[in-house]
Amino acid sequence: MATVTIFGKGNMGSAIKGILEDGGATVQALDSHDENPTIEGSIVILAVPYPALASIAKQYGDQLAGKTVVDITNPLDFSTFDSLVVPADSSAAAELQALLPNSHVLKAFNTVFAANIASKKTGDAQTTVLVAGDDDDAKAEFIDLVKAGGLDAIDAGALKRARELEAMGFLQLVLAVQKKLSFTAGFAIYK
Amino acid sequence: MATVTIFGKGNMGSAIKGILEDGGATVQALDSHDENPTIEGSIVILAVPYPALASIAKQYGDQLAGKTVVDITNPLDFSTFDSLVVPADSSAAAELQALLPNSHVLKAFNTVFAANIASKKTGDAQTTVLVAGDDDDAKAEFIDLVKAGGLDAIDAGALKRARELEAMGFLQLVLAVQKKLSFTAGFAIYK
Repeated sequence: MATVTIFGKGNMGSAIKGILEDGGATVQALDSHDENPTIEGSIVILAVPYPALASIAKQYGDQLAGKTVVDITNPLDFSTFDSLVVPADSSAAAELQALLPNSHVLKAFNTVFAANIASKKTGDAQTTVLVAGDDDDAKAEFIDLVKAGGLDAIDAGALKRARELEAMGFLQLVLAVQKKLSFTAGFAIYK
Repeated sequence: MATVTIFGKGNMGSAIKGILEDGGATVQALDSHDENPTIEGSIVILAVPYPALASIAKQYGDQLAGKTVVDITNPLDFSTFDSLVVPADSSAAAELQALLPNSHVLKAFNTVFAANIASKKTGDAQTTVLVAGDDDDAKAEFIDLVKAGGLDAIDAGALKRARELEAMGFLQLVLAVQKKLSFTAGFAIYK
């Protein structure tokens, strides 16, 4: 099975680590206390806040070349909860791909809450991860890993679709912060 | 109860008519074969394709003044299924509001498929309509009508949020067209 490196040991990083290990993957968990680590995974999940993406890309760009790099961020303006901080015609994932031109960037996990990753359910539905990216092989391998861990996953198209995934993640977060839905419920997908 | 006028007798218009009548509303259904009708509803739902919005606004702008006007469109480029035809920082609903400055424009129903309106279920969940708009009274009245008809509805915020609703509607449509999910399933919401 694959070795996956996860940057970030918060709610999202921990929940993703759990399901990947359930699926048989070996997971290396790193955070900012690890100084100059060697990245062991061929798949690297950046379970960090959006503002950390650029510095990780700068510090680890060489090590990330040739790897699959998964962006899970929702680039909200957390001072207003009224907009994203990326340009309207772009996305955090597109920005990351520009910073890491030799990596295969995927967008995933930004439309699911941590609790629903861990429980593998969103309401009565199996939690489903939407995955966007331009490299079909990298995307297929990642989708298989997620499914092995007990979640469902859907190929949401090219990395361009990260824009819609980030809009959806933004909307879901705002509704949860406003208590119109719970952080243990939210957007589910039925096929 | 309210009187609602629905422009459009297609799948969406018919399904919306059905649930509103279930909730006790009186519905006037119109389409392009009706020449110069008198709009009877204080709430007017434009269940028409996006390209028809501008001509309806032009022809009926005076009659629509003071009314609640509901935009349900997904303004896709149907030649490519790869983008929306509205600017990235705008929405069909924002464009309609600009054309109808004296109406209270709401965005609603664009994230739910017709079959799930009629059945009132999306998978195992009650079908939930996300409603965005700047006039709180108009929005609250419309949400009550939808709920009376047996669907759930959530206030998704100001009309600015139509951008995220249209991104979500776009993504869901593309996934359905690609057969990654069914037009009788799709995005559900758990609270």
